Amino acid sequence: MDKKTVTAGVLLIGDELLSGRTQDTNLGDIARFLTPLGVQVGEVRMLSDETDIIANAVREFSERFDYVFTTGGIGPTHDDITADAIAMAFGLGISERPDALAELLKRYDEMDLNEARRRMARIPEGASLIKNPVSLAPGFQTKNVFTLAGVPQIMRSMLLDIEHRIEGGAVTSKRSINVSGIGEGDIGGFLGKIAGKYPDISIGSYPFFKGDGYGLNIVLRGLDESILDLAKSDVEAMLIKLRT
Amino acid sequence: MDKKTVTAGVLLIGDELLSGRTQDTNLGDIARFLTPLGVQVGEVRMLSDETDIIANAVREFSERFDYVFTTGGIGPTHDDITADAIAMAFGLGISERPDALAELLKRYDEMDLNEARRRMARIPEGASLIKNPVSLAPGFQTKNVFTLAGVPQIMRSMLLDIEHRIEGGAVTSKRSINVSGIGEGDIGGFLGKIAGKYPDISIGSYPFFKGDGYGLNIVLRGLDESILDLAKSDVEAMLIKLRT
Repeated sequence: MDKKTVTAGVLLIGDELLSGRTQDTNLGDIARFLTPLGVQVGEVRMLSDETDIIANAVREFSERFDYVFTTGGIGPTHDDITADAIAMAFGLGISERPDALAELLKRYDEMDLNEARRRMARIPEGASLIKNPVSLAPGFQTKNVFTLAGVPQIMRSMLLDIEHRIEGGAVTSKRSINVSGIGEGDIGGFLGKIAGKYPDISIGSYPFFKGDGYGLNIVLRGLDESILDLAKSDVEAMLIKLRT
Repeated sequence: MDKKTVTAGVLLIGDELLSGRTQDTNLGDIARFLTPLGVQVGEVRMLSDETDIIANAVREFSERFDYVFTTGGIGPTHDDITADAIAMAFGLGISERPDALAELLKRYDEMDLNEARRRMARIPEGASLIKNPVSLAPGFQTKNVFTLAGVPQIMRSMLLDIEHRIEGGAVTSKRSINVSGIGEGDIGGFLGKIAGKYPDISIGSYPFFKGDGYGLNIVLRGLDESILDLAKSDVEAMLIKLRT
């Protein structure tokens, strides 16, 4: 394998996620955006709206992962503190940036660009802007950290301006096998042996319950297509043997 | 205020969450279970299936929060390593426990209780079992850490055997205000001033976009009902002023 594994950490920011009020969907969108680029999400944290907690996590993730994504907390209200947290994480200054203000002025005339909205032009020193085609208030990139909006429609639109900034790695392929009427306990031992035989791939099994039926999704992931095919054959042979 | 704030950390375990394959719903269920008990979720992490990573997070969360919940990784397959990670976190032994095996024997006869299923009876030393009325394989409590299944139906059923173990704190109340046709940028400044006036409550604003309309949910949270009512009146007065 020539290409290295490239990883990302994701920080989902906002009290509303922790209280159960809002169901996050941004992680799924980010993960599905990254997979074909050969980037694997290594860890995710949901954080409350506290500047120092966010800053510490940003600093830690920036060192541990190749890329970091943050969502949430870059709007115009008092609880939007992510930009300040990023600045704090890296010891950078933060101020209103003319290029960010110019984006906002495409949407709002001078009259409507009140103090609250101008907050959205506050960008950490040295960051490059990330385009927001939906509502124009930009995200930004600071070192290897991409700071995006929390509103899903806006977050997704910002990913369009990130793809070209990412140097991906080896792309993981997968094979899926669906079986019904079989539980994890029936195959756990066999699956563990197959997993031991193919240390370069990961094998997961995910039980499902539907109506009065049940079954398993068995998912094999790895970089080498031929090894995946071999392992899949082993799993299928094991399932046939189990049923006879 | 007599009652202290009681907090929980949540660890959602499984590669399938990080890959975007599975959308987590357990956090929402846990948060909604804890809120009326007066326990606030302080941070959430989604972790991959790696024993040392899980063990480190368990140890850190066990110190930082009053309670810790883990979901996932206690089934019968080779990638179910949460019990080992909990044992590692606290330097405890782990072995097959007769009381856990007895639970499994209510469901499986001796013949069907194969090696894989017996894995589900491996419990860290000194832990107390948590009942699983759905599929019987128990969860367990180790110090302040509750280790639960990942399958949502089973996870929820285990919460029934946790409520009596939790010493809750002050219960947070909330007030919600819905407005349409107003964006965060219209009220950000005013809302920040109201938030500054009432430091004991938290005020969040959550924009929504529906069809061709848009608006805001403004949510006030705090322990004191009368302060919440005062702050809500201030927000409503501000909204009326803004519209006239």
